[in-house]
Amino acid sequence: MADLFICLDIGGSKILGAVMNEKDEILLRVKKKTKPELGREAVDDRIKSVIHELISTYGVGKNDLKAIGAGAPGVIDTKNRNVRYAPNLPWKDHALGRIMEEEFKVPFVMGNDVNVGVLGEWKYGAARGYSHVIGIFVGTGIGGGIIIDGKLFTGSGFAGAEIGHMTINTEGPLCNCGQRGCLEAYSSKIAITRELRAGIDMGMPTVLADILAEEKGVIESSDLKKAVLQGDRLAISTLQRAAYYLTAGIGNLINIFNPEIVILGGGVVEALEEEVLSLVKSNIGRFAWPHMLSRTRIRAAELKDDAVLYGARALISEILGY
Amino acid sequence: MADLFICLDIGGSKILGAVMNEKDEILLRVKKKTKPELGREAVDDRIKSVIHELISTYGVGKNDLKAIGAGAPGVIDTKNRNVRYAPNLPWKDHALGRIMEEEFKVPFVMGNDVNVGVLGEWKYGAARGYSHVIGIFVGTGIGGGIIIDGKLFTGSGFAGAEIGHMTINTEGPLCNCGQRGCLEAYSSKIAITRELRAGIDMGMPTVLADILAEEKGVIESSDLKKAVLQGDRLAISTLQRAAYYLTAGIGNLINIFNPEIVILGGGVVEALEEEVLSLVKSNIGRFAWPHMLSRTRIRAAELKDDAVLYGARALISEILGY
Repeated sequence: MADLFICLDIGGSKILGAVMNEKDEILLRVKKKTKPELGREAVDDRIKSVIHELISTYGVGKNDLKAIGAGAPGVIDTKNRNVRYAPNLPWKDHALGRIMEEEFKVPFVMGNDVNVGVLGEWKYGAARGYSHVIGIFVGTGIGGGIIIDGKLFTGSGFAGAEIGHMTINTEGPLCNCGQRGCLEAYSSKIAITRELRAGIDMGMPTVLADILAEEKGVIESSDLKKAVLQGDRLAISTLQRAAYYLTAGIGNLINIFNPEIVILGGGVVEALEEEVLSLVKSNIGRFAWPHMLSRTRIRAAELKDDAVLYGARALISEILGY
Repeated sequence: MADLFICLDIGGSKILGAVMNEKDEILLRVKKKTKPELGREAVDDRIKSVIHELISTYGVGKNDLKAIGAGAPGVIDTKNRNVRYAPNLPWKDHALGRIMEEEFKVPFVMGNDVNVGVLGEWKYGAARGYSHVIGIFVGTGIGGGIIIDGKLFTGSGFAGAEIGHMTINTEGPLCNCGQRGCLEAYSSKIAITRELRAGIDMGMPTVLADILAEEKGVIESSDLKKAVLQGDRLAISTLQRAAYYLTAGIGNLINIFNPEIVILGGGVVEALEEEVLSLVKSNIGRFAWPHMLSRTRIRAAELKDDAVLYGARALISEILGY
């Protein structure tokens, strides 16, 4: 008999699932589209089908499965395993935990995906061994997770750590959230794409012109990387600007949280790890107090696309003790 | 036999001490100048003399004194009762706790004064009954304290909660700390005084012209209050500006900490409580997310000059269990 766990990364576009053993190894992965446009029950069914497929394909024995853990975007009540609110999924005050426990007859735990990802980095990745951790993930938006004294911090209503919506310029550009000058309005892929388009509109030459003319959404991190590595001036100056403001946000978090380590992850950081880390480290002295900065490491995240899976495993351990 | 406690508020200019009983009533107060210019031993002796005077004047019996608690400015190692660093006092890696315990033969606990003040408001003042609290004190500078899940948050190195040095405008005015655009550079008495002087230099009429011509330091909160209540336009617009940026800082803290309550205190808020609270409440929707804001109360602190004394009592209770 083995102790097995199923870990899920539930996103707005795909559901990633894995079987993990008691050594925290990933034994099998399954991926399905989320299709949130089909509505709540369809999404729940798709999550169930990922779990069923993991169980049947791996051959998980009836008594081997100990628990299921998940990370999902939105405000997740980790205590009651309810989704309070998830902007990209058809969920509002949705008792996902109860539904999954009825189906699979094992405990189901869940948390906000970015929070859970930071928990993963803390237990298995770049922040192993530290007790005070800030995680910042730079992708389409900017999300964060905070570990205080070896415990995941969620705020009084499970909505804390919204570091992407920290104002770093009160009169700055409008953010998607309706406020002005949020960190996300400067350093996310949304902001980077907006700056690149503004440069193109002003007639600045860039290898990204064709890609951005075709692509309506945000830029792919891999395209940004290619342009930066080719020495594209617009791409480089846009990355520098995004990293500069990201550093302001990191400085604020260091002054407020006095952490031991700051972990940077997400698509943009993964694609341009060396460049982003070097820009942040060269600017951070402008925003963080020397006394605190001298005791704070700044490092790239390690778990990449598996952060939430490992984090779900860590959440099972944190809540259920397995 | 009674259980008695001595509580201290050690500041850069004065040492305030009190005898408190087991009902947390203040029975006697003593105040002395700190005189930091006389050096470390002299300051330690002045603290000792405040305690000796409290003991002898009240007639504290040898077995009645259970513990001494203190709040002091700077980075205070609450676990080891050491002062790591205190910019306004002649202390660096100073074992104040050991020295006081040798002198008085009872346990001595201490913490950062603003942190301890928030602990006081939480246990005895405006934040009673809440578990997630942000306290912001607006005086010459801006200090903060944070309670998470019913516990005082200090960061990994006892230097956390430096909310006055959160950047709210990356290209903003220089702050005393050497950074730009810190909350303190907008909303502290230092910043308010600077704005008033700038207005006077530009020839704006104000009832504060004479006071600021004579006074070289920062403006007294009571003078600012008088001018605002008289309808002085420069004083009013300066207060509005300070409160606006203060609100940006509060919004950031709400988005990051998702607290149940935000407590505002310090000289400026005490002098102009109604005005500051009303300005903050009318602007906060611009900076805090509606989801979190709807669950967050914003209130004035209650304990005024006694916040640190009561907080020292709360710290004794938190650390020693008395």
